[in-house]
Amino acid sequence: MTPQSHEDDLQKLRGLVKDIDFCMLTTVVENGHLHSRPMSSNGDIDSNGSLWFFTNASSHKVNQIEKLPKVNVSFADPDNQRYVSISGSAQLVRDRNKIDELWRPEFKMWFPKGKDDPDVALLRVSLEQAEYWDSPASTIGYVLNFVSSLVSGKEADTGDNRKISFSR
Amino acid sequence: MTPQSHEDDLQKLRGLVKDIDFCMLTTVVENGHLHSRPMSSNGDIDSNGSLWFFTNASSHKVNQIEKLPKVNVSFADPDNQRYVSISGSAQLVRDRNKIDELWRPEFKMWFPKGKDDPDVALLRVSLEQAEYWDSPASTIGYVLNFVSSLVSGKEADTGDNRKISFSR
Repeated sequence: MTPQSHEDDLQKLRGLVKDIDFCMLTTVVENGHLHSRPMSSNGDIDSNGSLWFFTNASSHKVNQIEKLPKVNVSFADPDNQRYVSISGSAQLVRDRNKIDELWRPEFKMWFPKGKDDPDVALLRVSLEQAEYWDSPASTIGYVLNFVSSLVSGKEADTGDNRKISFSR
Repeated sequence: MTPQSHEDDLQKLRGLVKDIDFCMLTTVVENGHLHSRPMSSNGDIDSNGSLWFFTNASSHKVNQIEKLPKVNVSFADPDNQRYVSISGSAQLVRDRNKIDELWRPEFKMWFPKGKDDPDVALLRVSLEQAEYWDSPASTIGYVLNFVSSLVSGKEADTGDNRKISFSR
């Protein structure tokens, strides 16, 4: 797998999610329960394969993530029959420069005290695997594996980036 | 909490999900990764608080669920800014009478051999907690707790069915 093919995969994913404003972020609670909630993505996945979300650092989900960082981010676009599942690891980021970079005025809707509120922070979800379905009438899903090179820093085997057929 | 209020909660949930054909079912893999995939719900939640999905018994997700039965089912309706998270436990059900009851001819799209294929089975997700957001502009989510009476058979405390404010 070449760096170019990773970039192609990221471009493909960006195209799939760019018009879906809200995704569902699923976290695991210590008792094993899975909870999800709508989150506004900025419609982008950066070149490191990270998705960024604004959050309150004191929120329940941050507490959950600090104990169990594995998460799922799902994007659903029923009108276009497009569904994306992203598996990754989430991490709280309090970098004020990054907050300044990603902040948009409309986020005041959720963070009325604005970006300088010390409780305003970021969640970075580092993409490890993505699957997508571009028609629910099909049983075919596509898997893109990022874990080897993006997370471990090692190059992935060529076989890691493949299309596979899911049985339902 | 009276049985009536449970029924009211189920009615509320049914109203929220009835027009959302595809939800995302999130399962946990043994290595801790969370995966989701689109699933067609039959648009109903039965009087026991169960959601039913058709599946191939030999599928990966059934294997995952048999090891780790806790799942999340999320419904997203971006046009109406409506989002629902259902936490529950999933179980494979091979009851042929139930398969006959729930089968619809259009399911042949995913199960070309039809309902008599021995690999065709059902997944029952027993609802334990539901949360919903009827506007993403709000930070208010609503929690409906079903675990006490529907899963354990005991009556829930009145305080279990409440509206709470989520911080992001």
